[in-house]
Amino acid sequence: MSHDGEGLARFSINQMTVKQLSLPELAAACTDLGVPGVGLWREPVQAYGLEATAKLMRDAGLTVTTLCRGGFLTAIDPHARVRAIDDNKAAIDEAATLGTDTLVLVSGGLPAGSKDLHGARSRIAEALSELGPYAASRGIRLAIEPLHPMFASDRCVVSTLAQALDLAEQFPASQVGVCVDTYHVWWDDTAPAQIDRAGRGGRLHAFQLADWVTPLPEGVLNGRGQLGEGSVDLRAWRALVEQAGYGGPIEVELFNEALWSQPGAKLLTQTTHSYLQHAC
Amino acid sequence: MSHDGEGLARFSINQMTVKQLSLPELAAACTDLGVPGVGLWREPVQAYGLEATAKLMRDAGLTVTTLCRGGFLTAIDPHARVRAIDDNKAAIDEAATLGTDTLVLVSGGLPAGSKDLHGARSRIAEALSELGPYAASRGIRLAIEPLHPMFASDRCVVSTLAQALDLAEQFPASQVGVCVDTYHVWWDDTAPAQIDRAGRGGRLHAFQLADWVTPLPEGVLNGRGQLGEGSVDLRAWRALVEQAGYGGPIEVELFNEALWSQPGAKLLTQTTHSYLQHAC
Repeated sequence: MSHDGEGLARFSINQMTVKQLSLPELAAACTDLGVPGVGLWREPVQAYGLEATAKLMRDAGLTVTTLCRGGFLTAIDPHARVRAIDDNKAAIDEAATLGTDTLVLVSGGLPAGSKDLHGARSRIAEALSELGPYAASRGIRLAIEPLHPMFASDRCVVSTLAQALDLAEQFPASQVGVCVDTYHVWWDDTAPAQIDRAGRGGRLHAFQLADWVTPLPEGVLNGRGQLGEGSVDLRAWRALVEQAGYGGPIEVELFNEALWSQPGAKLLTQTTHSYLQHAC
Repeated sequence: MSHDGEGLARFSINQMTVKQLSLPELAAACTDLGVPGVGLWREPVQAYGLEATAKLMRDAGLTVTTLCRGGFLTAIDPHARVRAIDDNKAAIDEAATLGTDTLVLVSGGLPAGSKDLHGARSRIAEALSELGPYAASRGIRLAIEPLHPMFASDRCVVSTLAQALDLAEQFPASQVGVCVDTYHVWWDDTAPAQIDRAGRGGRLHAFQLADWVTPLPEGVLNGRGQLGEGSVDLRAWRALVEQAGYGGPIEVELFNEALWSQPGAKLLTQTTHSYLQHAC
């Protein structure tokens, strides 16, 4: 499949990729480069102001492709669970105000001292039974993002697309689907069939790109590679989601200390070039 | 399942766990503590001398439970492939001399510049078609060890027990099976069914324990946790392999800079205590 003529039409820049840019700087840089979409994060949006961010994006003609992130639904303590539900409802409301249709969920790791992955996954399902209908009532779809298994203990007990779909399919597709991020699933030979499963169910709610590079840094969070610099066959993964019916935004989400040390506008330019070269 | 009366009868210490000990120190410490088995590594064995190591182990009454490691079978270059096959044959010969019946395989990562995981896995199968019969002729079983997906690019493209068994089952169980290491599979909710599959096929050739702790160190290789200090339900995994028919040695293999900075005999003592407390 070739996307030569399409250019940046489906490209979206996740805000964390260029976190050195303020929101007005990000909007200006996107306008300059013809970037049509942005994925936003709650914390910088809250710092700038929710309504102000929504206006800034509207005025710049930018589509907010996703809001990151809800989730962290694995607590056992009843008070912590109530706080998590409330916080996710707030995230859903924020997503609606920003005009996006998708809230990405990072489901949460094991509670301190727990070794019970199965129980943690059950508590995610329990929380989604309350959050799914709430999200749908606001016009928001929840997208469960499986995170790489190296995050299973401390960040996300949902490690594969199969697990994410096992959770999502307990609810209508209009409430809960999945977010496919190449960084998290590239190693998994069962992921292609799961992408097909997600597509057939109308649950491919978001698609994100990052490349896999080594050595991983301490803590492994901020070692994602620029597109084309690592081991991931980005075009092949794009073809898989498109064969499964996905025609939505393609969001680039990199967390990388070396990239963050560069000027943000230059990094955004470089990222668009890498996208055109390696994912189109 | 309780193993209270069994003590250290099935315990084996992988040499890398206490790599600060020389081979004679290791043999002496095992004798002192009543540790009956050791897993050895090729490099320190070659440094001490193959025949000398075999004699040392025999004289100490120690069972060599595994030799680590063969593998690295993913090269594309024909010369590199020939060298890899030859090196694995040498490892098989060394295993036979040491009196173990099991050579653990770390299959290898992606060749430089390659993004083709499927091709790499095919080349492993191709190499095993030559190595399997050779190993069996020497009384050695090959044990494919799936490594955690965080090692998929640079160390081992076999990331799950399902993949390992897909490879192993192309050959007789007397030639090729799997090594289950809790550190690598603990996150995987499909692993229990695969352990059952491996057991039914007579392919559970080795079982290793390590715990999962975070944050992971830079490079992620040397961050394995002492038994009981992390997220892995070691007893549950032991029960799974035993339900699948495994009654062999239980090898503890930790790579951890902090543990390596301790006196080796003290670390071995501590490790036996952790084993008795958390895995029996």
